[in-house]
Amino acid sequence: MTKNILIAPLAALLAPLLAVSPLTAINAQEPPKQQFPSPNAIVDAAPASDWKTVAARDLLVMDLIPDAKGEPRRVIIQLMPPPFSQGWIGNIRKLAAAKFWDGTSINRVQDNYVVQWGDAGYDNPESGETEQKALPEGLVEVPESEYQVTDPSQGPINKAMMAATNSVFVAQGDAPEPNFLFDDYADIAFFDQGWPIAQEFDSQWPIHCYGAVGVGRNLSPDTGTGAELYTVIGHAPRHLDRNIAVVGRIIEGIEHFSSLPRGKGQLGFYADPKKRVPIRSIRLGTALPDAEQPRFEYLDTESEAFARYADARANRRDPFFVKPAGGADICNIPVPVRRMKTE
Amino acid sequence: MTKNILIAPLAALLAPLLAVSPLTAINAQEPPKQQFPSPNAIVDAAPASDWKTVAARDLLVMDLIPDAKGEPRRVIIQLMPPPFSQGWIGNIRKLAAAKFWDGTSINRVQDNYVVQWGDAGYDNPESGETEQKALPEGLVEVPESEYQVTDPSQGPINKAMMAATNSVFVAQGDAPEPNFLFDDYADIAFFDQGWPIAQEFDSQWPIHCYGAVGVGRNLSPDTGTGAELYTVIGHAPRHLDRNIAVVGRIIEGIEHFSSLPRGKGQLGFYADPKKRVPIRSIRLGTALPDAEQPRFEYLDTESEAFARYADARANRRDPFFVKPAGGADICNIPVPVRRMKTE
Repeated sequence: MTKNILIAPLAALLAPLLAVSPLTAINAQEPPKQQFPSPNAIVDAAPASDWKTVAARDLLVMDLIPDAKGEPRRVIIQLMPPPFSQGWIGNIRKLAAAKFWDGTSINRVQDNYVVQWGDAGYDNPESGETEQKALPEGLVEVPESEYQVTDPSQGPINKAMMAATNSVFVAQGDAPEPNFLFDDYADIAFFDQGWPIAQEFDSQWPIHCYGAVGVGRNLSPDTGTGAELYTVIGHAPRHLDRNIAVVGRIIEGIEHFSSLPRGKGQLGFYADPKKRVPIRSIRLGTALPDAEQPRFEYLDTESEAFARYADARANRRDPFFVKPAGGADICNIPVPVRRMKTE
Repeated sequence: MTKNILIAPLAALLAPLLAVSPLTAINAQEPPKQQFPSPNAIVDAAPASDWKTVAARDLLVMDLIPDAKGEPRRVIIQLMPPPFSQGWIGNIRKLAAAKFWDGTSINRVQDNYVVQWGDAGYDNPESGETEQKALPEGLVEVPESEYQVTDPSQGPINKAMMAATNSVFVAQGDAPEPNFLFDDYADIAFFDQGWPIAQEFDSQWPIHCYGAVGVGRNLSPDTGTGAELYTVIGHAPRHLDRNIAVVGRIIEGIEHFSSLPRGKGQLGFYADPKKRVPIRSIRLGTALPDAEQPRFEYLDTESEAFARYADARANRRDPFFVKPAGGADICNIPVPVRRMKTE
């Protein structure tokens, strides 16, 4: 009976925390730390029905030449779903089908910023000019207006409204909008179809988080074709949002980018062309033989498991932590993506 | 005269932007882009009086063994000023004076998270136990309460108050608190003595941004001695704020950390001890001969140049940008630190 007397005060003490975390069942038989699983433990315990398959046509498989020790270097990119950046993504599918990137290279590695790849050009000794590979036919020019998607049916949601909720991350299962976050770069940020999205008034756009893949371009009004791509390898450069198209994210192998030597030229370009890292090939997932097609799944961002995961990221209560943060920025809640188990 | 007629409407059009950026002088002789210098251009143009010297006793000079090509790898760490984390920093000065880290190693490189170094221990084949180097005498045990500094003279500033200003980053020269930012992890964030700091009610604490150096520890109530250190090499892991001591930041050479191969063991530890990167030495700046002491300076975060720089980071209007973000999180406004020019 002594034990039971202790349970009630403990539950009462924890109630303010438990209110935002529907999963935490009080169990007097377990030490307290068991009541607060880590974000990863929540993901691991998510039911199979909470995972959604990534279609092979939404994957790019990139093979760099092997490293100095002969180890293969494969990087997998997931492309964004509609309605975001589809003009550029159509181009990218065509570029991959045309094997455009085969024999091009990684040309820029800027610390805490980006790794960039594409055709570095060929210095023709006869003409004295730098020549570039011909682009495949059928690429479209995408206007700047497509950096964001405007949907007048979306009501304006502003910071003051969110502040009124007095909660940076609200993950209650019964809240009408469980995944809205404060955001320094927009009115709000949230997850849509497994992707971090920002919104201001009736416009939405994809977010530059770690691992995001974007389209290099020249000065405005150029928006880039998709032939020149980069990925984020540092703190989220959110000032690029709405200024460059985000087309995807790296879901496996980013360490083959992030651990490359930094370029010593301006903006982190390799001053010495010999430092460039050759790309052997980039293929759409569907271009690979069936048995070799990569099979990935992501945790449904509408699921209860994701809400619990996001809440745990914003309020770490697993044993290592002394003080839950009480919030998170959206790039600190990476959407779980994993290889599907093969039967 | 025609030119002068054009100036007025242009100035009127730009007024809403100019209001937050005191530097931008309208000059009809210049093309428009010259009116909006990049953040780096603002820093480069800052007067010498806006730069503050970093004392040599606040620097740690870390030499890894040379890389595979025989190139030296030097990393410079700046320690935090009072009142933050001084207990651990006192220990760190003692550890450096005792040459504790010489012959230890980098043992962990976790992608988008941290690089960690210290004594990995020695597996004694006779005892079958892992033995660790003796710590120097005189290290203090620092309580968890020192993860933050509490100053009851600080008034509570909350998100709702900040929301009422309707501005994420307010850099007007005449605003009473020019450097306050919204923050997902605290009531506000701001810069103090050149460092990013968060505040909630009357407590302040240092922030885990890219390059921040912190003190590894075991489970609470352990707070670590300072013998085991890590640095952030990814998106700011703000959930660590107030959970681990931040003691400094890397101001030169972080690429020697961030480009290391990622560890394949749990949490990014090198599963194979041979992958560890030996540390040749870590010394306080003052332990080096006068002529070799590193001399750095940082842009005074109270200066007008810094306010303009931060405003420009939050509202990019230099030629590449189409859409200024209208805000920034504090880790996306890195404090400029540079080597002093030798006369």
